[in-house]
Amino acid sequence: MSEAEVRPASRLSDRLETIHALLRQRHDRLDPDRDVHDDDGAALNTIEAELQGRLDELHPADLADLLESLPLEDRLAVWQRVRSDRDGEILLEVSDSVRESLIADMDDREILAAVEPLDAEEIADLVDDLPTEVLPELMASLDAQERERVQAALSYADDQVGSLMDFDMVTIREDIRLEVVLRYLRRFDELPAQTDKLFVVNADHVLTGVLPLHWLLVNSPDRMVHEIMAPDVNTFHPEDDAYDVAQAFERYDLVTAPVVDGHMRLIGRIAVDAMIDLIREEGETEALSRGGLREEEDIFASVWKSVRNRWAWLAINLVTAFIASRVIGLFEHSIEKLVALAALMPIVAGIGGNSGNQTITMIVRAMALEQVGVSQVTRLWRKELAVSLFNGLVWGGAIGVVAWLLYGSVSLGLVMTAAMTLNLLLAAFMGVGIPMLMTRMGRDPALGSSVLITAVTDSGGFFIFLGLATLFLL
Amino acid sequence: MSEAEVRPASRLSDRLETIHALLRQRHDRLDPDRDVHDDDGAALNTIEAELQGRLDELHPADLADLLESLPLEDRLAVWQRVRSDRDGEILLEVSDSVRESLIADMDDREILAAVEPLDAEEIADLVDDLPTEVLPELMASLDAQERERVQAALSYADDQVGSLMDFDMVTIREDIRLEVVLRYLRRFDELPAQTDKLFVVNADHVLTGVLPLHWLLVNSPDRMVHEIMAPDVNTFHPEDDAYDVAQAFERYDLVTAPVVDGHMRLIGRIAVDAMIDLIREEGETEALSRGGLREEEDIFASVWKSVRNRWAWLAINLVTAFIASRVIGLFEHSIEKLVALAALMPIVAGIGGNSGNQTITMIVRAMALEQVGVSQVTRLWRKELAVSLFNGLVWGGAIGVVAWLLYGSVSLGLVMTAAMTLNLLLAAFMGVGIPMLMTRMGRDPALGSSVLITAVTDSGGFFIFLGLATLFLL
Repeated sequence: MSEAEVRPASRLSDRLETIHALLRQRHDRLDPDRDVHDDDGAALNTIEAELQGRLDELHPADLADLLESLPLEDRLAVWQRVRSDRDGEILLEVSDSVRESLIADMDDREILAAVEPLDAEEIADLVDDLPTEVLPELMASLDAQERERVQAALSYADDQVGSLMDFDMVTIREDIRLEVVLRYLRRFDELPAQTDKLFVVNADHVLTGVLPLHWLLVNSPDRMVHEIMAPDVNTFHPEDDAYDVAQAFERYDLVTAPVVDGHMRLIGRIAVDAMIDLIREEGETEALSRGGLREEEDIFASVWKSVRNRWAWLAINLVTAFIASRVIGLFEHSIEKLVALAALMPIVAGIGGNSGNQTITMIVRAMALEQVGVSQVTRLWRKELAVSLFNGLVWGGAIGVVAWLLYGSVSLGLVMTAAMTLNLLLAAFMGVGIPMLMTRMGRDPALGSSVLITAVTDSGGFFIFLGLATLFLL
Repeated sequence: MSEAEVRPASRLSDRLETIHALLRQRHDRLDPDRDVHDDDGAALNTIEAELQGRLDELHPADLADLLESLPLEDRLAVWQRVRSDRDGEILLEVSDSVRESLIADMDDREILAAVEPLDAEEIADLVDDLPTEVLPELMASLDAQERERVQAALSYADDQVGSLMDFDMVTIREDIRLEVVLRYLRRFDELPAQTDKLFVVNADHVLTGVLPLHWLLVNSPDRMVHEIMAPDVNTFHPEDDAYDVAQAFERYDLVTAPVVDGHMRLIGRIAVDAMIDLIREEGETEALSRGGLREEEDIFASVWKSVRNRWAWLAINLVTAFIASRVIGLFEHSIEKLVALAALMPIVAGIGGNSGNQTITMIVRAMALEQVGVSQVTRLWRKELAVSLFNGLVWGGAIGVVAWLLYGSVSLGLVMTAAMTLNLLLAAFMGVGIPMLMTRMGRDPALGSSVLITAVTDSGGFFIFLGLATLFLL
């Protein structure tokens, strides 16, 4: 990709809008119900030519966005008009579900032509989504080194550095002058994208340092590499957790970093573009899973696909709602005698859920940033319980007064206040306790934390409120 | 910051753990209730020296993390031991609430010493958190250009490029040979961090192109800058939305990009580190606001501060819960007659809320990525309503059967199924409609979307279920 291809973001939305308009015009002309005009053929040709021109000047990343924003029919119309040498890059950029719809439209020959030119780690990224019958031919078409790299990348999990590293590094020896380095670099047509430093290795390919490109520029060509290189660098291992590495990139403002094996032998490179994608995806996955979606959804996917993407969370929610419903069922006699309880109970459960979610969000976040550990549980409990006690007395008190005025019963108001306070205390206790316990058990504290706390505060809230009411009001 | 200071992320947590342990040992020795030993003074000195050594070798970003993970007393103990020339960088890295606690511990002279060495855009970042009485002295201590830059940065909103750009760019003229450029660069001690390209300007400081550093290295020194530079680049304006620019960095794998005014005159630079911070913060803000927190919370903040951070969402939640409670109140007579309604109604409301949140999460996300616009509302409604109809019949049918078996009434089961289906349809209708309407009204569709949809599905669910029951069962 050359720098000349890309253009200001501010003009991008206009250009996408033009393409959408052209697609609509094309649709209108192709509509079978439409009155036929003499100039239809010519007009259609003009539209097609204009459309082709507009598509050709789009960057692959922008084409990926365009494809995601189109319903299936238009999406495939655009996909067929994209130059085949860009197919691979576009497939890398689109979301999983859209990729599936594009690959379904390609025959094996087209798929091979699209994927072969890609780098090893990029091929590894796509392999899961390719039809199995093309894989033997694809692997056979790669040279031995490339095949080995694809297999290496496939051997790591998606959240390990090994699956994200590339091999686009420039290595030099430490016992030469900068002048020699400069001459060596001049033999390249272009350096790999995002090259900000050269990796210095010895005869055994062991990494001994790094040489930022600009040090090469500000130092005299007579100096030796080992005199000016930085010996101690951020090195990572292929088994490292990719999110930790992304954090290191963010902390230390890195652009690239070397990946080494256990003997400090250089085996690959991690670049900031992969880390940005990771950070963005992390935020998105969190947002999606909080919303109860299993994965990014193609907004134009079939109803059936959407149902499958969403059913798991609905099922969990149904189970927790059913449990809460059975808790209420225990107190049906009390509700029969004092029907106000039915109207007031959702308030107790709702506020507990909201407050518990606040606590658990904060704790999970602090744990992810390693600001707190299991050892601080007592201190956190003390604080969160204090916050809840305060909120319970203030908000619970306010709602208690409202209940008293609405139903004319002081004791009902008092029960309401007590129940809200107790449910808020339960929410605080579990909001700290759940993530701590999950960490102790070696699980990700973020996973399903919101569902769990809501389940506890719903059933707990109903139990506390209806239980207190049964004890004191009936 | 030199490359030599930073170290592998994998060893970082060990080093932070060591510091935590030293702080605990220091605590123990200083404990007034403790039996006094002869060697206490010497032991304390050893601990202090070890602690100081460990702190001195930490990168400012890691020190920021450490400070965030400590209770106030330890935090200030560490803060006082940090070399004052790093204070400014650390203040930039810590969260707002922790920054407040650190600045409260510094006198005006220390604050000035910490802030003065920073770059203009960094000073602008901190200004809001500094005590007003130091501001006149701070501004007076800057030179004219620096002061102008601080004021310019302050004139832009936090989400505009102008507040994030720096001025660390290297500019060259287009009518010179690369050899001259190489000689010019050699006069620098070091190029600005993350410099991946030089900006080419004419005599009027108008940007005419960019020269990636590595093109400088692979091309012959005899060539002219204008022969090899890239003429068309990603340029941004200070008024541009920073999130759009971050998206462009992600799309086009940029490391730096020029910021220009309306006449293409170069005024600053945007670097990838600022964009990574922005992408990370965007994800975090979303997570926090979904959890009902106004801002990032200092986990060791006082109870009172936590209460203030959380009260707004609790108050909103209380209002919506109260409305739902009044809806139930309308049907108290029905519940009195058939108390099973009280136990079943939270299921109807809960499933509707979950499903509505799925829809609204997906639509808000697709709108943020500009995959869908207001024009596609009919198509989206059709699909979401179909998904809901399917889910309503399947899950509603299942729960209807359970209700029938539990309470021995077929008609109760049928009402349950019908109510769940209708509430899911309502959730789908509003899940698409709310973000579309908010966009039409020029508002951010993400803001409060979850609260709104839950309010609708709660009150709506209670109304639909109890209404149907009143009509058909009593």
